[in-house]
Amino acid sequence: MSAMSNLPTILSRLDADLEASLTRLSSWLEIPSIGTDPAYDADTRRAAQWLRDDLETLGFEAALRETPGQPVVVAHRPKPGAPHVLFYGHYDVQPVDPLNLWETDPFKPVVKEIELGRRVITGRGACDDKGQVMTFVEAMRATLAETGDLPVGITIMVEGEEESGSANLPAFVRDNAAELKADVALVCDTGMWDRETPSITSSLRGMVYQEVTITCADRDLHSGLFGGAAANPLHVLAKIVASLHDETGRITIPGFYEGVEEPTNQQKADWADLGLTEAEFLGQVGLKHSVGEKGRMLIEQIQSRPTCDVNGLWGGYTGEGTKTVIAGQASAKISFRLVGKQDPAKVAAAFQQFVTERLPADCTAKFIAHGASPAIAVPVDAPALVKARAALADEWGGRVVTIGTGGSIPVGGDFKRTLGLDTLFVGFGLDDDRVHSPNEKYDLSSFHKGQRSWARILQALAS
Amino acid sequence: MSAMSNLPTILSRLDADLEASLTRLSSWLEIPSIGTDPAYDADTRRAAQWLRDDLETLGFEAALRETPGQPVVVAHRPKPGAPHVLFYGHYDVQPVDPLNLWETDPFKPVVKEIELGRRVITGRGACDDKGQVMTFVEAMRATLAETGDLPVGITIMVEGEEESGSANLPAFVRDNAAELKADVALVCDTGMWDRETPSITSSLRGMVYQEVTITCADRDLHSGLFGGAAANPLHVLAKIVASLHDETGRITIPGFYEGVEEPTNQQKADWADLGLTEAEFLGQVGLKHSVGEKGRMLIEQIQSRPTCDVNGLWGGYTGEGTKTVIAGQASAKISFRLVGKQDPAKVAAAFQQFVTERLPADCTAKFIAHGASPAIAVPVDAPALVKARAALADEWGGRVVTIGTGGSIPVGGDFKRTLGLDTLFVGFGLDDDRVHSPNEKYDLSSFHKGQRSWARILQALAS
Repeated sequence: MSAMSNLPTILSRLDADLEASLTRLSSWLEIPSIGTDPAYDADTRRAAQWLRDDLETLGFEAALRETPGQPVVVAHRPKPGAPHVLFYGHYDVQPVDPLNLWETDPFKPVVKEIELGRRVITGRGACDDKGQVMTFVEAMRATLAETGDLPVGITIMVEGEEESGSANLPAFVRDNAAELKADVALVCDTGMWDRETPSITSSLRGMVYQEVTITCADRDLHSGLFGGAAANPLHVLAKIVASLHDETGRITIPGFYEGVEEPTNQQKADWADLGLTEAEFLGQVGLKHSVGEKGRMLIEQIQSRPTCDVNGLWGGYTGEGTKTVIAGQASAKISFRLVGKQDPAKVAAAFQQFVTERLPADCTAKFIAHGASPAIAVPVDAPALVKARAALADEWGGRVVTIGTGGSIPVGGDFKRTLGLDTLFVGFGLDDDRVHSPNEKYDLSSFHKGQRSWARILQALAS
Repeated sequence: MSAMSNLPTILSRLDADLEASLTRLSSWLEIPSIGTDPAYDADTRRAAQWLRDDLETLGFEAALRETPGQPVVVAHRPKPGAPHVLFYGHYDVQPVDPLNLWETDPFKPVVKEIELGRRVITGRGACDDKGQVMTFVEAMRATLAETGDLPVGITIMVEGEEESGSANLPAFVRDNAAELKADVALVCDTGMWDRETPSITSSLRGMVYQEVTITCADRDLHSGLFGGAAANPLHVLAKIVASLHDETGRITIPGFYEGVEEPTNQQKADWADLGLTEAEFLGQVGLKHSVGEKGRMLIEQIQSRPTCDVNGLWGGYTGEGTKTVIAGQASAKISFRLVGKQDPAKVAAAFQQFVTERLPADCTAKFIAHGASPAIAVPVDAPALVKARAALADEWGGRVVTIGTGGSIPVGGDFKRTLGLDTLFVGFGLDDDRVHSPNEKYDLSSFHKGQRSWARILQALAS
């Protein structure tokens, strides 16, 4: 109770310390930790060291832990007898190309007002994920300054390969499972519902990503000689792609919807309450109409229904001008977002069978499996979720939404499968943060109220 | 008659001169005249200059004639009082991608034995069309060397944009119609029936080549955020491509078959006589079954029926690994082979309407017209055709077939419409020459007996 009673002073300290916290964030943002590009390996390591050093000033036992790729920053501040949380984030950032579209240097952060009363900090990683990670670090710093202690035991794990697919993280989590043990995992790498409404992402769609190459003739053919007789793999592939969805937007692969649960009436009511419209959501990218499954709300289509999208397709002559070729091969990259209890292995197998059954004589298909992970979900009545939700409501003045996300954050699956942990995804990004694009920014309101939110959540989790 | 009596010595000279003629061809093949790619503009021009220079050594008045694109080589050797022929070919070659599939450098020609007694010359353009053009040039060279003259007046017109659709040739022919006047046109850009049987192609399918780009969202989208709602242009394009043919292989565009004539019983009997089988024709490229219109003979499908093939299709992420993108745009290059009285303009318009009618809300289509030409045919009893046929029979020992070709050589239509000329398409390519593919080659038997064939035809046309 002593800590909880200190909350007002902790929050006041965060208010007073905002400029200093921006200076700290800026110095981290200045390090170009493009983890996917070997040319930036030294910088990437420097960004890891920066965080390690900062956590050591907060009394953490912190270290860079080597992997076959970029190091993982792991830091511990145990508190025997108290709940223990595992916090995850990443210090690597996306590449910055096309550089000429940046209004300011991606690694020289600038604080500026983009509209009346709306200030942001710009730079690569401002939101994703350095800014978000620092909301948590600053909450700890203020709490320690005011109380000399943290309300819960904390393990920090911040990796450097998230933007390139976290290739080494699953093994790292597995190899260090005992050390990473906790009661709940916290991840700050997601967005708010809108600028006034925080959200807890409690479910994540899974993913099956397959590449298929269809071969007909054993070489490229001249369409003047063979046209009218020879099988064309682009026609074959187009027919298969065209048959993946029916007229209602439903995916036609047999067994695909096995394990998909229908929403409860309460869920439907909650969704309806959010009032997400096509004009609002699709309008921002030049579209007006959802092509998703008919008879379902837009929010349901993008958050809690499984999907299938062709992410790339190619074959034949794709340069300037013309070539009268019938290609020997055509390829597609196709991904499925999974929900509920859909089994990634079954979905992958069903897709491959679906393709194979549709091949005409003379045609063969080869598949590359690029990844498969199940959907994960935290029960809506999980105690940590209920506590975090109340803390966010206190900070933001009422409304908090608990949502699913269409995207996949594989680390959540690793925590569940390897550590047996539920993960709360609490983040303060906004839809217009341009993560992965030029001119990435983070609103100061996200940065500041994000710090205050974590200070509240840490207290709440201790109770 | 004096020239005709010299035929044996001309043929002997061609026999003796084969190695030297291969050296000449090789030096032309070494020039990478990829006319469609601006990066090769200088090389393309150099290939034109090479031919101009060679024709000048044969006593032609030769020049590079500028167009908005690649220059046309035009050369004259008039012979007042004698018949006059217009010879057409092209010095540009197809692009060479995928380069890694070439066994030897496409622009370092090699002579090699591919099976016992069967020698070929390899390289891009070895057949299409530099090797074929040189059969005619070498016939003239030997005739001049033996007789000091040519039996007919000759105009040579060899262009540099055939592989990219001959965009500037119709205007060039129109603007120079008086200069190009002749009694008959000869084109060496077609194939033999088989390795022992020459053919005269007297009908050619026409061509409509369209490129379509479908736009949905105004940018690339993250499939985790927008998947399940946002229109995917690859899905849209796949559905359109899939609907171009019905289950019987028939093209579904309304009005497409307008102007297509059914074959006579005589034609059907002639076709049956040739006995072309799927195993024989498709087997050479690793296929067994025709996917053409059901209920029609294979030879009819490839020679005298209109077709539709997607020559290239692309969109989204096509590199290594994965990217969870929903593309903003997807594109396809689609060509139609036309026969009989099909109207290219009507076919192009019908195709565009077919696409436009199938666009979902929010999606737009833009078209690029890459070329349009009608089918053409020469009467089987045209005097020049009868003479050429007899000359070919003398050279090859009997059988000569007069066929239609599936390919389109639009220049034939220009010669007919603009100059009022019939065109004899006499060429010595073989089905396994891999024109437009890696490892293009030309059989030395085609090159050598092709030269001898032209020497005979030139004499025959003078009579």
